[in-house]
Amino acid sequence: MTTQMAREIAEQPEAVARTLDALRPLRGELARLAAGTRHILFVARGSSDNACVYGRYLVETHAHRMAGLAAPSVATHYHAEVDLTDALVVCVSQSGETREIVETQEWAASRGARTVAVTNDGASALARGADLTLATDAGRELAVPATKTYTTQLAAMAVLATALAPEPTALDADLARAPKEMARLVEQREGVDAAAAQLAHSEETLVSGRGLLFGTALEVALKLEETCLRPVRGLSYADLRHGPIAVVDSDVVAIVVAAQDGPVVGGLTEVALDLQARGATTIGLGGDSAFAQACSLAVPGPDLPELVAPLAAVVPGQLTVEALARTLGLDPDSPRGLSKVTQTDAG
Amino acid sequence: MTTQMAREIAEQPEAVARTLDALRPLRGELARLAAGTRHILFVARGSSDNACVYGRYLVETHAHRMAGLAAPSVATHYHAEVDLTDALVVCVSQSGETREIVETQEWAASRGARTVAVTNDGASALARGADLTLATDAGRELAVPATKTYTTQLAAMAVLATALAPEPTALDADLARAPKEMARLVEQREGVDAAAAQLAHSEETLVSGRGLLFGTALEVALKLEETCLRPVRGLSYADLRHGPIAVVDSDVVAIVVAAQDGPVVGGLTEVALDLQARGATTIGLGGDSAFAQACSLAVPGPDLPELVAPLAAVVPGQLTVEALARTLGLDPDSPRGLSKVTQTDAG
Repeated sequence: MTTQMAREIAEQPEAVARTLDALRPLRGELARLAAGTRHILFVARGSSDNACVYGRYLVETHAHRMAGLAAPSVATHYHAEVDLTDALVVCVSQSGETREIVETQEWAASRGARTVAVTNDGASALARGADLTLATDAGRELAVPATKTYTTQLAAMAVLATALAPEPTALDADLARAPKEMARLVEQREGVDAAAAQLAHSEETLVSGRGLLFGTALEVALKLEETCLRPVRGLSYADLRHGPIAVVDSDVVAIVVAAQDGPVVGGLTEVALDLQARGATTIGLGGDSAFAQACSLAVPGPDLPELVAPLAAVVPGQLTVEALARTLGLDPDSPRGLSKVTQTDAG
Repeated sequence: MTTQMAREIAEQPEAVARTLDALRPLRGELARLAAGTRHILFVARGSSDNACVYGRYLVETHAHRMAGLAAPSVATHYHAEVDLTDALVVCVSQSGETREIVETQEWAASRGARTVAVTNDGASALARGADLTLATDAGRELAVPATKTYTTQLAAMAVLATALAPEPTALDADLARAPKEMARLVEQREGVDAAAAQLAHSEETLVSGRGLLFGTALEVALKLEETCLRPVRGLSYADLRHGPIAVVDSDVVAIVVAAQDGPVVGGLTEVALDLQARGATTIGLGGDSAFAQACSLAVPGPDLPELVAPLAAVVPGQLTVEALARTLGLDPDSPRGLSKVTQTDAG
């Protein structure tokens, strides 16, 4: 039986293509809204927050603007009187109804920020309250674990960052290739079932990545945790090496996520070797050939440059999570204890 | 036998008092350096990064400036051409020699930022390269787990935030009380051995907190992990509720960290009850009386308002970690696999 999660994973290439087509024409308006601002502040939780981690790196490395992630309690609980008159605040929520995010957007506007909403519901409270909405076109998502709403958020991040970049169209050819690479990865499933089988026997799981694909690592970790109900840690490779690597031993299966190019794949290859030297089993997701060879098990990633690779690199991770849930006898479509619209307590 | 870590925990009240005395006179100079900047960007790893999490919340809630944490690879690997002319960049490193942090400071200066170094070695590379140095006066730290270098960094954060605040001296009376509260907590050790005994039998540990004490939760988690060699997750209470709480069951011992006042202690009390309803054993560190009653086991925190509580709230956490390491037959002074000056790979 095909699960809903598997169907929605397979719908992603079209959802991302539709979203890119819908949002690219808004780049002029985005650039005008952002004119004069100097700082991009992202606001989100969960998978949307992981999309923002990509947005943050892409804005800083490609559009050369300062970017960061908000601490929502500064708005919702401390009501801090921060001056946001030079900030573009980008609030991201699949449903557009997560109260904490809606409240933080209201706070940002009241503190002088210009606001952009990224949501899959263009009629939601978040969309209604924003200066400009980037409505992702994922269609309705029925499985609880976010997949196509997450990758369409990544598409929105790419549109935002290119709108702010000196050459807005520089990445367009690569972005246009992303849906086809996603479709190829869904079709081929290379290494996916072997990775799921390996994870099924693991006592402890961690996921590591760095830079533009760090958000991908966090998203694979969160998805594993939510869907397969096991504690998983997502750690930047640098933070891992700074301390937590001391607790890695042969009980650990470590997933390391990398792009096929860029300045961090070499370091991630070293970390894979280091993890293996400490006894861990390593699953390499993506990377170049040296990276794949350094890992116990290689799951190929997309043939895309690092700047846009995150749109497709998460796909084999999603497929692995879906396969693992089934292997464990769990229902990936409605994991225990989670609902679709998440409320924290922005009271 | 008293461990070096225990001795250094006990040295903290004097180290923090000395540091506050040394740094308060620099507030005028800090304010002049920051004049005209609009954004505070913190750069660090490990325990220093946890100190920066406090700095970030304190700057936003008390000094009303935008603040955030840098992604060092944006500097060291992507060499991003970000415009930092309106940023005050605060680099924090105990040794002042962590290459990644020194390189990020050089990058920030080359991008137009004004730079402040927070380090325990006023003659280090980091100090030599900064526009202004806040030299913490912890004395030499011999145990590998940072304790007094961490709390003196918190003192530096408080001095920085008060220097930027409209009323620089508003917190001075509370700050002056912090060393005495730290000394009282070291002396009384209330609940510490019971907490360590509980943790010794746990399969899985997580630490949660929010807002101004979120950094304290992260630091207790990191210390447990580094010193007691077990995987521990530090999660903001909101992120915990957004998903990972689904995997909490009776195998989990959860430490929840709270201040005695402020807008997040109510929510943290609810999360403690929620964790307990899922079968977890909860250790409450600090909080008000309702919070303590909601937890399986209460470890009292300092009698200090939330804005300055982090300087002392970490102390019972450090004492618990030190006691747990001994219970587990580990040497808290030199945990496996870690060295004192951490290098990641800012190459």
